[in-house]
Amino acid sequence: MTDPRFFRRHGPFSLGDIARAIGAEPPGSDGSRMIEDIAALETAGPNEITVFNDRRYVSALAESHAGAIVTSRELAHRARNGSRLLFVADPRLAYAQIGHLFYPPPALDPGIAAGACVDPTARIGDGSQIDAGALIGPNVEIGARCHIGGNVVLGAGVVLGDDCRIAANCSVSYALIGSRVDIATGVSIGGQGFGYVPGPKGLVRMLQLGRVIIEDGVEIGANCAIDRGATGDTVIGAGTVLDNLVHIGHNVRLGRQCIICGQVGIAGSTVVGDGVMMGGQVGVADHLTIGAGAKIAAKSGVMRDVPAGMTVGGFPAIEIRQWHRQTMGVMRLLRRQSGDGS
Amino acid sequence: MTDPRFFRRHGPFSLGDIARAIGAEPPGSDGSRMIEDIAALETAGPNEITVFNDRRYVSALAESHAGAIVTSRELAHRARNGSRLLFVADPRLAYAQIGHLFYPPPALDPGIAAGACVDPTARIGDGSQIDAGALIGPNVEIGARCHIGGNVVLGAGVVLGDDCRIAANCSVSYALIGSRVDIATGVSIGGQGFGYVPGPKGLVRMLQLGRVIIEDGVEIGANCAIDRGATGDTVIGAGTVLDNLVHIGHNVRLGRQCIICGQVGIAGSTVVGDGVMMGGQVGVADHLTIGAGAKIAAKSGVMRDVPAGMTVGGFPAIEIRQWHRQTMGVMRLLRRQSGDGS
Amino acid sequence: MTDPRFFRRHGPFSLGDIARAIGAEPPGSDGSRMIEDIAALETAGPNEITVFNDRRYVSALAESHAGAIVTSRELAHRARNGSRLLFVADPRLAYAQIGHLFYPPPALDPGIAAGACVDPTARIGDGSQIDAGALIGPNVEIGARCHIGGNVVLGAGVVLGDDCRIAANCSVSYALIGSRVDIATGVSIGGQGFGYVPGPKGLVRMLQLGRVIIEDGVEIGANCAIDRGATGDTVIGAGTVLDNLVHIGHNVRLGRQCIICGQVGIAGSTVVGDGVMMGGQVGVADHLTIGAGAKIAAKSGVMRDVPAGMTVGGFPAIEIRQWHRQTMGVMRLLRRQSGDGS
Repeated sequence: MTDPRFFRRHGPFSLGDIARAIGAEPPGSDGSRMIEDIAALETAGPNEITVFNDRRYVSALAESHAGAIVTSRELAHRARNGSRLLFVADPRLAYAQIGHLFYPPPALDPGIAAGACVDPTARIGDGSQIDAGALIGPNVEIGARCHIGGNVVLGAGVVLGDDCRIAANCSVSYALIGSRVDIATGVSIGGQGFGYVPGPKGLVRMLQLGRVIIEDGVEIGANCAIDRGATGDTVIGAGTVLDNLVHIGHNVRLGRQCIICGQVGIAGSTVVGDGVMMGGQVGVADHLTIGAGAKIAAKSGVMRDVPAGMTVGGFPAIEIRQWHRQTMGVMRLLRRQSGDGS
Repeated sequence: MTDPRFFRRHGPFSLGDIARAIGAEPPGSDGSRMIEDIAALETAGPNEITVFNDRRYVSALAESHAGAIVTSRELAHRARNGSRLLFVADPRLAYAQIGHLFYPPPALDPGIAAGACVDPTARIGDGSQIDAGALIGPNVEIGARCHIGGNVVLGAGVVLGDDCRIAANCSVSYALIGSRVDIATGVSIGGQGFGYVPGPKGLVRMLQLGRVIIEDGVEIGANCAIDRGATGDTVIGAGTVLDNLVHIGHNVRLGRQCIICGQVGIAGSTVVGDGVMMGGQVGVADHLTIGAGAKIAAKSGVMRDVPAGMTVGGFPAIEIRQWHRQTMGVMRLLRRQSGDGS
Repeated sequence: MTDPRFFRRHGPFSLGDIARAIGAEPPGSDGSRMIEDIAALETAGPNEITVFNDRRYVSALAESHAGAIVTSRELAHRARNGSRLLFVADPRLAYAQIGHLFYPPPALDPGIAAGACVDPTARIGDGSQIDAGALIGPNVEIGARCHIGGNVVLGAGVVLGDDCRIAANCSVSYALIGSRVDIATGVSIGGQGFGYVPGPKGLVRMLQLGRVIIEDGVEIGANCAIDRGATGDTVIGAGTVLDNLVHIGHNVRLGRQCIICGQVGIAGSTVVGDGVMMGGQVGVADHLTIGAGAKIAAKSGVMRDVPAGMTVGGFPAIEIRQWHRQTMGVMRLLRRQSGDGS
């Protein structure tokens, strides 16, 4: 049960329509049953749909009063309430899709709000919504069906594709942004990179003449900061997702479909392959190469290249089993010595 | 001596009035002496009040020219300047209270500034001040005597109690906020949590259908980011305080009276008991339980549950004495081996 | 080749003019040759200037088609293409200076934009530009040739010197700022420090009656948070540079010409000498003294004073060679023991 002050539910949808939407095997006689909402396995009622995705909850499955349950044939082979089951290959994915069916993003209210400030040279695509206080600079190009939140500042020349959302209070400059990009509140994009040369009167900043390229489908969490390139560009690859408060230095190149958790920092010019995962608070030094599919455990400090596919952890980060062995080994060693004064 | 460009001093107050305000034993003949300001022990003059709260400064106490000195009977048993002493049980607390007497928060200037944008369906309580550039969405409810700073964006349906302060450039959505909540500049509240399911065309975000519940008396530092729940809510318990740049993941539940220092990150669904303290840059993994009264040393990485009352440190975090032993032990061990090539 | 949507090139300049601007030895017969842009050693053409600053690229030097190459006599003693070389003592610095010649900061558009909100008591210097949505509070003083970005909020009494840039969506209060200060987007300055006293009804915040003093030439990265002092001031020394998402606690005093990388956190009352360098994600505990010229390796956790000139690393941070020895020693020790079950 969602809070109607914040969420507007769509539907109801028939079980048959839901099955079609998620590519499930068609339900039997129940195809016309109307489903009104999604809910947890324990609390779902006869008008609601839920998911069974974890064998540990098999007793909850047996007791569930849900009107329909998304699961897979493998998971549900022992289930008794077969008539209400919808079978898919990936129940978790299907359930996420059903969620988006009942709770699509709020419809846009196209147009430029009074109190927004749009430069006459900016071009805004059909169906886009510009909220009050937004400042759209010269020669900005915004695609169709975008939502630019309140008090967002888009600097001169910024380009956005279609179906983007830039939430309130973001500042974006020197950036070329693809389609379906979702940027949360308070994000800073396009700042100068952090590079200085010592001079006789103090530090002289190296010029930062590159851009930020954000490819299609990227999602960026609240209060992140992404610097533009010095020469060449900073790149966030298609489908990559960043959690809150992430720092991306100048000329970093993130691959596609990476998952970068909260408060990660990646220093300048590091190249990250496709599908890399970084846990929260990871730090990666500058000018490194992190191979595709690498996984970096939370809070690790990466000071050397990481080969493709390797999982690393610790500070300095090493291969993860080696790190766990080291952590355990040190404790064992010290325990053994506790007789001689440790 | 405070800078009058930034701080407006109230008073003077008589020593008797000050004593009453802090619950001190009534001063003797000096009750009518007028006190004009607070000041440090070393610099306070005869019209100023100060605090003696640390035995190490006993010589400064002897030499102080302060017109009045807040202290406790235990601390001051050797003091010679007894006539100027105000005795309380907790001098540090009393001194903080006296500070708020001389420097109360600036009075509000109630009303909606020209240049603020308030949806006609929003309700604003008596005595509240809405600064220019603030955007107040549909059905927002703001209690009495709140201050909404410049360029703040409050999304549809947000609820605030009485006596709240939301400082400039904050973005708040999907949130129910209690009374006496103080939120510093640049904070992002209510963003989508960070949860994805891999799909055939890339990552699919899990729906985030919960809220952020901020209870009474919470204080949140600058540029923090707090995500809303996925199902169920993210909760910040009454009286809890967060320093700057803290990251709170979706469905985290923080207890009451917690102290969370700068740049801490708490990953999704972790439950933190009452009165927990976390030092700066601590990271806590997801789905953990941190018991009431636990203390986590700065920069620790917590990867397992922490029992109530335990103090932990290190990465991975372990019981703090064990961590200190380990740190010392490793150094000793290596020193001993330095003959054979280490 | 820079993107003309974002960068406007000045020039062309004659080689003689460039030589004069950087204090290079005057070029021979080529002084009147016109140079149109800067470019990388590998890609620069006959109308462009580049830099040779690293012996490893000596083959690229030999093959370069650049119209002019900035280098030093030491570096270039083996170069064959002597006629195109410009000799300076510090090629990297000279090249940065040439960059600023071709790409000076965009010219200001002086005046107060419609949609900015300037208190009648504020004073704004000649040639300053105030963008839309900026809120300038009572008694603010802004010097000459400053640029206040969109939706910036400057609180009552804030003072700025000349030639400052405060980028979009910053919030600044309780601050005295020098000249030539550059503050990136989303920065929070002047918040209350994080200090509490436990009271019978919960935590009572200690009054924060100090200011933030930012000296000349400081540069602050995106989404940083700098708290004001409690008693006395928080100080950022002249010429110091901060990367993104840095947290500076109350009463911290940073020296001059410090380099503070991304996501560093410095806790309350710590004093940092001149010329200190801190790598990314460093944490420094409160009330410490970091001596002038100290270097702190990325991600270190500093829990004790650091003597002037020392380089430290690790968590807890120790002298850097000792830390490297320790890291290597632990791995060697465990490898040796792997026969007995580790």
